[in-house]
Amino acid sequence: MSPDQREKERSVAALVAPDILDLLESEPGSIAAETEELHPADLADVAELIPRELVSLLLTSLPRERAASVLEYVDDDLRAEILEAMDPDVAAGLLSGMTPDERADALDEMDEEAADEILEELPERERAETERLLQYEPDTAGGLMTTEFVSVPDSQTVEEALAAVRIIARAGRREAMGTVYVVDGRGVLSGVLSLRELLAAPEGARISDIAWSEVVTVQATADREEVAQLTSNYDLVAVPVVDADSRLLGVITVDDVIDVIQEEQTEDVQKFGGLEALEDPYLQSSIGDLLKKRSPWLLVLFVGQMFTAAAMGYFQSEIDAATVLALFVPLVISSGGNSGSQATSLIIRALALQELTARDWFRVMGRELFIGLILGLMLGVVGLLRVVAWQWMGISQFGEHYVLLASTVGATVVGVVLFGTLTGAMLPFFLKRLGFDPASASAPLVATLVDVTGVVLYFTIALLLLRGTLL
Amino acid sequence: MSPDQREKERSVAALVAPDILDLLESEPGSIAAETEELHPADLADVAELIPRELVSLLLTSLPRERAASVLEYVDDDLRAEILEAMDPDVAAGLLSGMTPDERADALDEMDEEAADEILEELPERERAETERLLQYEPDTAGGLMTTEFVSVPDSQTVEEALAAVRIIARAGRREAMGTVYVVDGRGVLSGVLSLRELLAAPEGARISDIAWSEVVTVQATADREEVAQLTSNYDLVAVPVVDADSRLLGVITVDDVIDVIQEEQTEDVQKFGGLEALEDPYLQSSIGDLLKKRSPWLLVLFVGQMFTAAAMGYFQSEIDAATVLALFVPLVISSGGNSGSQATSLIIRALALQELTARDWFRVMGRELFIGLILGLMLGVVGLLRVVAWQWMGISQFGEHYVLLASTVGATVVGVVLFGTLTGAMLPFFLKRLGFDPASASAPLVATLVDVTGVVLYFTIALLLLRGTLL
Repeated sequence: MSPDQREKERSVAALVAPDILDLLESEPGSIAAETEELHPADLADVAELIPRELVSLLLTSLPRERAASVLEYVDDDLRAEILEAMDPDVAAGLLSGMTPDERADALDEMDEEAADEILEELPERERAETERLLQYEPDTAGGLMTTEFVSVPDSQTVEEALAAVRIIARAGRREAMGTVYVVDGRGVLSGVLSLRELLAAPEGARISDIAWSEVVTVQATADREEVAQLTSNYDLVAVPVVDADSRLLGVITVDDVIDVIQEEQTEDVQKFGGLEALEDPYLQSSIGDLLKKRSPWLLVLFVGQMFTAAAMGYFQSEIDAATVLALFVPLVISSGGNSGSQATSLIIRALALQELTARDWFRVMGRELFIGLILGLMLGVVGLLRVVAWQWMGISQFGEHYVLLASTVGATVVGVVLFGTLTGAMLPFFLKRLGFDPASASAPLVATLVDVTGVVLYFTIALLLLRGTLL
Repeated sequence: MSPDQREKERSVAALVAPDILDLLESEPGSIAAETEELHPADLADVAELIPRELVSLLLTSLPRERAASVLEYVDDDLRAEILEAMDPDVAAGLLSGMTPDERADALDEMDEEAADEILEELPERERAETERLLQYEPDTAGGLMTTEFVSVPDSQTVEEALAAVRIIARAGRREAMGTVYVVDGRGVLSGVLSLRELLAAPEGARISDIAWSEVVTVQATADREEVAQLTSNYDLVAVPVVDADSRLLGVITVDDVIDVIQEEQTEDVQKFGGLEALEDPYLQSSIGDLLKKRSPWLLVLFVGQMFTAAAMGYFQSEIDAATVLALFVPLVISSGGNSGSQATSLIIRALALQELTARDWFRVMGRELFIGLILGLMLGVVGLLRVVAWQWMGISQFGEHYVLLASTVGATVVGVVLFGTLTGAMLPFFLKRLGFDPASASAPLVATLVDVTGVVLYFTIALLLLRGTLL
């Protein structure tokens, strides 16, 4: 997206926020009418822009249903803060207007005590519904699902089902309405059809005859990544969630799946960058949070690099004999880290998208062995020519054995790039095999692993090629 | 997701593929009945698993509508290959069963000549529809949209609209059916309502009275990233696409948006890893493709690292005087690359999610300045203690001035980490400002930029602290 487009998009909330601020101070009673045409997501952005103490006034100036819709789009932390600051009965009023899954999420993000007070104030039916949803871990299918969905008994006719759907629709339920789930007498999910198919069905037909009996479902305890993968593989707009006995418990809507996909991707990028994934957006993370997520890996990698220093120490006498060797150490070892970073980014992404499975490691190794060799030869030749050229042009004085030195640099680069490529490609498989997240194979980790080897390889090759001349 | 779950998911296609292969060889006539219960996405996976020459037989063994659904889920390249190998009229038959957007995509991926032959064979209406869609670039909103959507005139009543929707539904249109778009006499999009709201509306009401007049739309020429951002911000299940005069052209469904999000993310990860983004999945990319995407950046970075070698050369006399200094070069410079990689991954992701805009650079700099200093001090102390401890434990002999050497290492690490963090955080903003993709600020690029500076800083501090002792 171009910068212009970004600015344009941001502008809805940014443009109206000053006017809304004025109104809040002069005549809050007119807010509802004045903001009627705004999308709730834009009003939520306004709520994030104005001073915290005015957000509550903004929300209570809106009709309850409207305020609830806005609250569904407000950032998690701000929402928790706003609700905690409200009277529990006012907060409960707002929460009853929210969809069940958003209501449960909102309570889940609050102080337990404040959440309990609000729960007490919720109407009986909403409270039971919310408590049921709160049982599930937030990162499971159960934690993502809503209990607002449409199900009809398989024994009904198309007309009966349509009438039932109309009643549910008029009752104001908002989510997961495009799909109609078919259940048998025990609540077991037996089929699915779209609202369109229900409308198109011939009159008099039985639901059990027109519904699709093969339904893609997910267990309530399944990881949210599985939900994302199913949605993406099967192009679903809603995923039904079932218990161990295949009874329909709820439905996950695609907007929540998109959020999951975005969050998982954010985690993967941050891990690949060499830190623990943040829980909040960057600007909302405190300095303390950021330090806590960044310092451990940085320390681990720093300690890891001490092996490189130790390897250098092991070859100190060679450096003493020919300090010119030391000049090329950063050049040589970084080529391994760079090629490793490339291979790792390809493999962790392919694993995340299930384009590759654990069983493909051998095939990947074959390809990367070949690619690493070609890349290594390319860089090796450039490295060799560079040393020779600098000498010829008189930029550097490497002494009479400069061709041997150039050969040492070139040969090492071939080996280091090959090794870096293989390490980068295989590390994600290795981590997966050990039960770790393959995305933990970060660019800095690969570079650190390859650096030690690079130093050892460089001086070993130097000893072979330069003994009797420089060494 | 656990490895078990992944295996389980893969297994549908893997489990049935051998049986389907047997049937294809013994009695292809029974394929349709035997595979009736399979999801088209699973049959598409089967098509990807079996030998290429049998895929065409599999598809022609299925009813045409069914084969078209399967084809919608088949991987792009394989699909192009299959269609190109078919008789144009058979291929056209399959394509007419596909949704208009998938049909256009399929033709777009084929040889132009083969695509033209198939276009010729399409029925008049489908051909015109497809040619209209093919006008748009694949990475724009127009290239993503389908022309299968439901629109009703704003002058209709609820009953008239419901009857119209029923007719459209019975005509077998499959996509974007959950939302009803309202247009005026000139085709200008004037409102939107969900099929649920239409069902719930009081009888006799006018569509213009019950539809929502604020519609989130996107221009046909808009970048696909904008589509993804709108969908995610507003929790949409479908995005209407309009021309410059606000006339409704088509609708983008959320399954295509999810694909866009996944693809954009894949590109970002690969760029961050330090290569050009691949066009195809890893295993489907040829070795030549992979080399073409990886070698240019690797060469650029390698040439960049020659500045590090040049910087080392500049300080060769210092290394000559105290070779012990050379031992810590990799340790010191890598700490800058690692901290830079962390900062870059945070900032490019926050920019991609629009949590940050270009205007936030100053605020980010303030935060990262502080964080970089703290992280630098932490690592610097560890580095200093490491040198001292090795000396005390007799592991290394750094000579009598080991405390000064330790101080040089420690002080340099503070500076390098600070500089690395700032470079990593600011580079994405800088690239964005210059009109480049901020995701091009790859981990290897940051490391390379920081390495040169690290070397210069290290030897400068060494000259300050060690002059008269080691130097």
